Amino acid sequence: MKNIDEFLSGIKEFCSPKVISKVNDHYLKLAKVIGKLPLHKHKSDELFVIVNGSMDMEVEGKIYPLKEGDVFLVEKHKMHRPIAKEQCDCLLFEKKDLLHTGDQVFDITKTIDEQL
Amino acid sequence: MKNIDEFLSGIKEFCSPKVISKVNDHYLKLAKVIGKLPLHKHKSDELFVIVNGSMDMEVEGKIYPLKEGDVFLVEKHKMHRPIAKEQCDCLLFEKKDLLHTGDQVFDITKTIDEQL
Repeated sequence: MKNIDEFLSGIKEFCSPKVISKVNDHYLKLAKVIGKLPLHKHKSDELFVIVNGSMDMEVEGKIYPLKEGDVFLVEKHKMHRPIAKEQCDCLLFEKKDLLHTGDQVFDITKTIDEQL
Repeated sequence: MKNIDEFLSGIKEFCSPKVISKVNDHYLKLAKVIGKLPLHKHKSDELFVIVNGSMDMEVEGKIYPLKEGDVFLVEKHKMHRPIAKEQCDCLLFEKKDLLHTGDQVFDITKTIDEQL
């Protein structure tokens, strides 16, 4: 058993998702997001739940403002990026093999092992 | 996009999970739990995130106290039940075909269609 607040206090790096639990062939992760991430897409869906703060989600050129408690599905193959002016903490539900910056590698890209 | 607080305000029945989002072959659900549910098990994992309140999770005879922000994995095939003295709201992450009372039918059992 883990706790969201305690787990967040152990995350020192921004935009670096960390696995808090597995469930079947998916992971539940926590991330502290700040800044404008590079546009990317995934082969499978990615679900966001905002835990603290707010951010915008850009999906195929459209901006969706997200606040605490919002649940937002980024469907597979959609180009997207989070944009957070200030720190925004979020839960991510995604398949175990999902690469967090999709099919591209950026400076911020972490391997799945680095997220464990 | 949905919001957890707004979605919870629309749930009128206890122990009756409602789907707030799909993601791949899984659903994210919200439930208001109260009382001692019947013991049951599932063919796949079920992940709980406590949103409001607290409850105990009984797993194979052992009691795990859960509070707000706790993330708890009930592994497949493990006999378990939530026990909530007062209302406890939780997120559930589970496969789309998971039956919320497992392989048994009780008075509280809802079909997957009733959860949509």
